[in-house]
Amino acid sequence: MRALYWNGCELKLDSSRRAPEADDRMAVVKVRLAGICATDLQIFNGYMGFRGIPGHEFVGSVTEGPGDLAGKRVVGEINFGCGQCEFCARDLSRHCPNRSVMGILNADGAFAEYVSVPIANLHVVPNSISDEEAVFTEPLAAAFEILAQIQLNPGDDVLVLGDGKLGNLCAQLLRLTGANITALGKHPEKLALIKKSGVRTLLLDDWKPRAFDVVVEATGSASGLELALGAVRPRGTLVLKSTIAGAHRLSLAPLVINEITVIGSRCGLFAPALEALEEKTVSVTALIEKIYSLHDGIEAATHAARSGTRKILLRP
Amino acid sequence: MRALYWNGCELKLDSSRRAPEADDRMAVVKVRLAGICATDLQIFNGYMGFRGIPGHEFVGSVTEGPGDLAGKRVVGEINFGCGQCEFCARDLSRHCPNRSVMGILNADGAFAEYVSVPIANLHVVPNSISDEEAVFTEPLAAAFEILAQIQLNPGDDVLVLGDGKLGNLCAQLLRLTGANITALGKHPEKLALIKKSGVRTLLLDDWKPRAFDVVVEATGSASGLELALGAVRPRGTLVLKSTIAGAHRLSLAPLVINEITVIGSRCGLFAPALEALEEKTVSVTALIEKIYSLHDGIEAATHAARSGTRKILLRP
Repeated sequence: MRALYWNGCELKLDSSRRAPEADDRMAVVKVRLAGICATDLQIFNGYMGFRGIPGHEFVGSVTEGPGDLAGKRVVGEINFGCGQCEFCARDLSRHCPNRSVMGILNADGAFAEYVSVPIANLHVVPNSISDEEAVFTEPLAAAFEILAQIQLNPGDDVLVLGDGKLGNLCAQLLRLTGANITALGKHPEKLALIKKSGVRTLLLDDWKPRAFDVVVEATGSASGLELALGAVRPRGTLVLKSTIAGAHRLSLAPLVINEITVIGSRCGLFAPALEALEEKTVSVTALIEKIYSLHDGIEAATHAARSGTRKILLRP
Repeated sequence: MRALYWNGCELKLDSSRRAPEADDRMAVVKVRLAGICATDLQIFNGYMGFRGIPGHEFVGSVTEGPGDLAGKRVVGEINFGCGQCEFCARDLSRHCPNRSVMGILNADGAFAEYVSVPIANLHVVPNSISDEEAVFTEPLAAAFEILAQIQLNPGDDVLVLGDGKLGNLCAQLLRLTGANITALGKHPEKLALIKKSGVRTLLLDDWKPRAFDVVVEATGSASGLELALGAVRPRGTLVLKSTIAGAHRLSLAPLVINEITVIGSRCGLFAPALEALEEKTVSVTALIEKIYSLHDGIEAATHAARSGTRKILLRP
């Protein structure tokens, strides 16, 4: 099959990868659409030391798998748990110490014609959700993870830092709680997109420090983190959404002095994300910048890495 | 009066400081005993840019103040709130944005014969608590703050990082919850002291990384922080007790990947600390290394700064 392959130095188009096979645990999914995410770009900078087929945002059709799934359109949770440990037992396979992670850790991903996924990880996509919407299930689930971790109440003053794809999804989603959301970013055109969903927006140039009950850091940059820490009120909460590879200089004294709670937040469950896509409470397709064929995958990855790019999708 | 004075460069003994006076809000307390704390040592390294009389751990007798307090032995909470803001209204004057902090921020401290303290901040010390015990109320309250912020349950696996005074108090206190406490430190003799209170101890040289439900960072060093982050289980909690001045290099990716909650924890309320001292559930006097007269305060501060020193007290 055709796939993009990351060999640790270079992303290559490989037209003769062996297609995955199904077994008792794994189904084979024909990829219909896959999304390039900031984590993929970090992998191309050495993050996680990954070697293999990248890609963990996808929608596809089951070609080999159990009868009730055969032919169905599906999305798949990306953490492949061992199924035996205490985390897996608590529906927390995304923290399984023995997990592999699709396209990130010890498992091939979706920048390919076919990908194998544990049957237990698959969710059937309702007909009312298009491929272009369904491919956002994974990042939207990551935004939902915030609501699984903290309680937001109507009137809470919330700052979402970052106007990229994740910041956009977080802002849209958190707004549904009735909290007062302000999205802070660098890019007027991206902020305009967020504003369309009814969120108050603010350009970084116009930022005057003030204290929020909750700050969500979704910029993916170390400087964002410093700003975020300074924007949380005493006893407030800072949610860190972006894994920033490498170490950076940081003073944590304000965190202690102001008794701030910092919560690391990563992948979420797919069910609430699919529900939101079905109910159209969150709008995602405006985030798509361009769809490339897998054949033009290298060009697509280069495009995705350009600052300010919206979502780049691959169609095998 | 006699006092130690920090001028920003040098700690000096000054025998002709003007004694504070009482007013409607402030009482005057004759200091009986004061403790030198790690924060004082940080101040002597430039922390908070403080100028004035340091010292925020004390027990004394009210010499000027309202009738019901006159002559009483007291300890005092160190954050002087404005009394008007939302934080003060919620008994959180320690987060009042307009606060001064005794011996740390815009208010003279207790390394003096007399100190002035807001009447609202004073707590009468029961007779069954000695001066040598009462002077530990402030650091013990800081340890109690942890229990005001997180719920510990019997059987929880807790690591206290740091075998200094704060680590000792935290370990003793958290043990009372029924949680399984392990204290990790560098100093065999300090760990032996902690062990006496029934806490399991472990020398850093023998440390093999493993995952705890809760880690309390009380080392006051940046390297402690790195170790602490690596010792929290996925979805676990890291409590930061020590304000580490200055910036340091740190990777926060593990925090996001493992969805760790980091809670900054500073000053606590005095009432539960006094209660614990009265009920002798926590033992503090073994932590005293030496009592100096205020006249020998410079020597006392030098002694306190030596690595591995237990609590140094000053008697004016």
